Amino acid sequence: MQAQTARPRPRRLEASERRREIIEVSTQLIAERGYRGVSLDNIAEACGITKQGLLHHFRSKAELLVAVLEYRDEVDLAESTRRAPRSLTRAGFREEIRESARRSIARPGIVQLYAVLSAEALDPEHPAHAYFIRRLNWTRELLRQGAVSWHPDPEGFAIELLSFIDGLQLNWLRDPSIDLEARALQYVDRILAEYS
Amino acid sequence: MQAQTARPRPRRLEASERRREIIEVSTQLIAERGYRGVSLDNIAEACGITKQGLLHHFRSKAELLVAVLEYRDEVDLAESTRRAPRSLTRAGFREEIRESARRSIARPGIVQLYAVLSAEALDPEHPAHAYFIRRLNWTRELLRQGAVSWHPDPEGFAIELLSFIDGLQLNWLRDPSIDLEARALQYVDRILAEYS
Repeated sequence: MQAQTARPRPRRLEASERRREIIEVSTQLIAERGYRGVSLDNIAEACGITKQGLLHHFRSKAELLVAVLEYRDEVDLAESTRRAPRSLTRAGFREEIRESARRSIARPGIVQLYAVLSAEALDPEHPAHAYFIRRLNWTRELLRQGAVSWHPDPEGFAIELLSFIDGLQLNWLRDPSIDLEARALQYVDRILAEYS
Repeated sequence: MQAQTARPRPRRLEASERRREIIEVSTQLIAERGYRGVSLDNIAEACGITKQGLLHHFRSKAELLVAVLEYRDEVDLAESTRRAPRSLTRAGFREEIRESARRSIARPGIVQLYAVLSAEALDPEHPAHAYFIRRLNWTRELLRQGAVSWHPDPEGFAIELLSFIDGLQLNWLRDPSIDLEARALQYVDRILAEYS
């Protein structure tokens, strides 16, 4: 199949750039319409390639969806690293939570993708199963060593915080009258006041 | 189709009892094997009826799954009501949380069913969509007026608690090394200490 790709196409060699473009376009479309409202055809069209061309980079919709979530992690992490070392102080921790809530509010489609895949991927056969186990481990470790290292039980608190945010996002998607940012900050402020 | 059901079958008239039996058998099988590991054929067989007979009571697997969750709510609520008015004290609240964690630990398959359907049902077209909105509303209201009415902000705390438990169950399903009961009690004890 590779031998047949001699038709003219701009930037033939930049497979990693094409991949990145597909992921960014997918993120944008999913953020707007929700992941069930976006087909591989829609994504291919928005990228100006064929569906077959798309499937050359991602073997299935599931594989592309995991790449979208990994890309979100990467961007969020880079953003947070840019703010360090302030993000490692208590005030910085509060800011991280607020920023994270605001990012979620700005792209509910991506949050829904995360929530649905996260639950479906409990099934060991699911293509995103390994991703979500890895993600739980590295976010827990990152929090423990960084943003919540001031807590007397950083390990336990990391689990509590991750769980609370996961559940809050889910309930906010279900009932948009819930104020995601205010609710998250109220929780964090109570914790910060307690361990000040 | 009803005219053809004249073949001998015990307890012909007790449709509500048959329905209940199907739900109880399904709950048991799902608790043991997970809901993806249980087919309508398995359930029908365990009830000693045909799949067609089963579909006479529940039009689809989705409808049956919602009935299983509603049944769990009913049993949990009855259990909690039995323990009232103690369950409305702070010590009783702690006990409710512990009991709830223990029930989850005893039937991870049901918790997984709840977690997966809960996320999938964010889609307005999903057959369990209305159920999960209703559930969020009544559990929030029940907590607000009862188990967490001692809290200075019962409405806000109800959302926080429900979110934390939802997220904790999800992460515990993903990583069984998380101690669901200990983690839930640690959270509750901190809250209780704070507002004592």
